[in-house]
Amino acid sequence: MKRTVVPAQLNLAEDKLVLIDQTLLPNEEKFLELDKAEDIFEAIKKLRVRGAPAIGVAAAFGLYVCVLKSKATTVSAFKKEFEETRDYLATSRPTAVNLFWALDRMTKRFNKEDSKSVEEIKMALLDESKRILEEDQEMGIAIGRHGLSLLKPNMGLLTHCNAGGIATSGIGTALAPMYAGHDEGYNFKVYADETRPLLQGSRLTAYELHKAGIDVTVICDNMVSQVMKEGRIDAVLVGCDRIAANGDAANKIGTSGVAILAKEYGIPMYFLGPTSTIDMNTSTGEDIEIELRDEEEIGNGFGVRTAPKEVKAYNPAFDVTEAKYITAIITEKGIIRPPYKENLEKLFGKRF
Amino acid sequence: MKRTVVPAQLNLAEDKLVLIDQTLLPNEEKFLELDKAEDIFEAIKKLRVRGAPAIGVAAAFGLYVCVLKSKATTVSAFKKEFEETRDYLATSRPTAVNLFWALDRMTKRFNKEDSKSVEEIKMALLDESKRILEEDQEMGIAIGRHGLSLLKPNMGLLTHCNAGGIATSGIGTALAPMYAGHDEGYNFKVYADETRPLLQGSRLTAYELHKAGIDVTVICDNMVSQVMKEGRIDAVLVGCDRIAANGDAANKIGTSGVAILAKEYGIPMYFLGPTSTIDMNTSTGEDIEIELRDEEEIGNGFGVRTAPKEVKAYNPAFDVTEAKYITAIITEKGIIRPPYKENLEKLFGKRF
Repeated sequence: MKRTVVPAQLNLAEDKLVLIDQTLLPNEEKFLELDKAEDIFEAIKKLRVRGAPAIGVAAAFGLYVCVLKSKATTVSAFKKEFEETRDYLATSRPTAVNLFWALDRMTKRFNKEDSKSVEEIKMALLDESKRILEEDQEMGIAIGRHGLSLLKPNMGLLTHCNAGGIATSGIGTALAPMYAGHDEGYNFKVYADETRPLLQGSRLTAYELHKAGIDVTVICDNMVSQVMKEGRIDAVLVGCDRIAANGDAANKIGTSGVAILAKEYGIPMYFLGPTSTIDMNTSTGEDIEIELRDEEEIGNGFGVRTAPKEVKAYNPAFDVTEAKYITAIITEKGIIRPPYKENLEKLFGKRF
Repeated sequence: MKRTVVPAQLNLAEDKLVLIDQTLLPNEEKFLELDKAEDIFEAIKKLRVRGAPAIGVAAAFGLYVCVLKSKATTVSAFKKEFEETRDYLATSRPTAVNLFWALDRMTKRFNKEDSKSVEEIKMALLDESKRILEEDQEMGIAIGRHGLSLLKPNMGLLTHCNAGGIATSGIGTALAPMYAGHDEGYNFKVYADETRPLLQGSRLTAYELHKAGIDVTVICDNMVSQVMKEGRIDAVLVGCDRIAANGDAANKIGTSGVAILAKEYGIPMYFLGPTSTIDMNTSTGEDIEIELRDEEEIGNGFGVRTAPKEVKAYNPAFDVTEAKYITAIITEKGIIRPPYKENLEKLFGKRF
C-alpha cells in the first residue's frame, strides 16, 4: 500500500513543534515553529491548533520541546521545570480532555524514568511524545481501512464539518477512508458541507482534501437534500464528539439533519471515531448536554454583519443523531452495527 | 381588525417611486426616491428591489413617475415617450415575469384611455399602478388570513429565505400569517433560517419581522433539525417560486430538506403563494429546471474567502419539495390540501 499523503500539519522538526495555523485557513497557509511555552499555550488557547487528537499531540510535543532546552543538571531540578511547564500548558484550554490526557502520559513516562539521567529522561519524553503521535496516526489508518471496506471506487461521499487530518496528526477519522481510498485510486467525489457558522467544512475539509489531490466540492449546508436527490451521494461519513451506550451520537450541529435526509434518500450514514469517543456511562443521547455558543458567530461571523445587530440568534454547537439513523459506527477496532446497545456492550465486554 | 404594520418598503410618495435599497440591508436602511428612468432601471437590475411582486409594483410606479414629467401636449407624442420608457424598463431584468406583466397592464390601460387628454391618461396610469399595488397588498392580506386559520397563539414558526413584505408591496406570502397573527396578539416565536449563500433569511426576514415587533430568532440552516427536536417549531411556513400540477413545489434551496425534517418530526409544512405561482402546465417537479448560480456566492460571499479559491463549489439556487412532504398550499383563494392533483384541478376548473 502506498503511503497516504496528508499535509504535514502537525509534527516535530528538530527541536521545534511545527503546526499549521488553522485560524488563518484557507486564506493563508502559515506554519508556526514553536519552542516557547508561552507561544505553545497561545496556539492551543487561540485554536491555532484544534481537534481533540491534534491538541493532545501538540501538548506532548510542546512539553518536550520546552523542557529539552532545560539547563538543569539534576533530575529533581529538571522535574520541577517539567511540572511547571506542564501545569502551565494544562491551563491553555480548560475543557480539552485530550490535553490533560497527553500531559498525563508524559508525566507517567517521566516518573517511570526518573532514576535515569536528565539526558536519558529527555530522550524518553521524546519517545513518549512520538508514541502519542504514532498511535494517533495508526488510529486514523485503522479507521480508514475499516471505513474503506464499506466503500467502492467512484462513489460520491458527503461529509460535514472537519474530522480530518487537520484535527489530528494523521489522516483524521471521517476523512480517513477518503485518504485510504485515494491511495488505492478510488477516485471519490467528495462533497463538503460548509458547516455554518464557523465553516470548518469549507475552510478546513475542502482545504485538506484538495491539498491531497482528492476531488472535493463545497456546498452550503442547506443543499444536502438536493445533492442527495440528484444521486450524487452514495455514503455520508462524519466524525463524532461522543457516542452514548445506545449508539446515539453527538457531533457538530447539522449532523442529525444530514442523517435524517440520508435515511429518507436511502443513503448509508456512517459515524467514524476512536473507541475513546464511546462513553458507556452515557446511556442515551438525551444525557448529552448541547453547548450553546455566542450569537455573534451567526450574526457577525465574517467580519461583516450578516443579521441585524438587534435580532437574536440561537447557536447550538452540537446535535445528537439518534441511533436509528446511523448505519454503522466505524472505530479503529472495527465496524459496529445495530443493535448498538448489545454490540457496544460486546465490544467493551461490559453489561449495564 | 387592526391594520398590519409593515415597513413601507415600496410605495409612491408624491411624484417619486420610494423603495428601500435591499442590497444594503441589514447594515443600512436607505430609502431611494426615484423619478428618472435610468435610476429605476438600475434599481431593478442591481436587485435594490427584488421579489417578483415587488418588481411588478416598482415597474408600474416607475413607469408612471417617468411619464408624469412629460411635456408632451398631444397623445401621440405622449404615447411615444411612454413606450420608449416602458421598453427601456423592460430590459432591466430579462427573466422577471412580473416586470413584463406590470408593464403590459400599464400599456393596456393607456390604450384603453387613449381617446382622452394627456392629463387624463396620466391620471389613469396613476390609477392602474395603484391598483397593481393594492391587488398585491390584498393578495398578502388574503393569504395571511387563510394561513392564520391554521395557526394558534404562542406557536413557534419556522421560515426559510424571505417571502415577506420586502419581496412584495404588502405583507408578503409566507410571512403574511405572522403579520396577521401579530395584529391579533398571537405572540408567535419565529425562527428564520439564515439561508445561505445570500442570507435572505438573516438579512431580510429577520430585519422586517423585527421591525414589525415580531419575536424573531436567526438560526443557521443546519440547526433546523435541532430546533425541531427541541420542540420549538409548531409549523413551517415558506413561500414558493412555482407549484406543479401535482403539488410539487419549487422554492429557495434548502426548502426540501426542511420539509423532510418537518415530516420526520411531525410538524406541518405549509407553502404560501398567490395562485399565479401554480403552473398547471408543469405536470410534476421533475419538469422544473434548477438554476445553478455562481460558485463565488459560496466561496466569497461576504467579501472574505470562506473556501479555498481553487476548490469547486456547487450552487443550485432552488430545490423542489415533493408534494408528499407538503401539508397544505395556502393561496389568496384559500387552502389546498392533498390530493393536490385533484384539488388543484378543481380550483382551476380544468382536467389534464
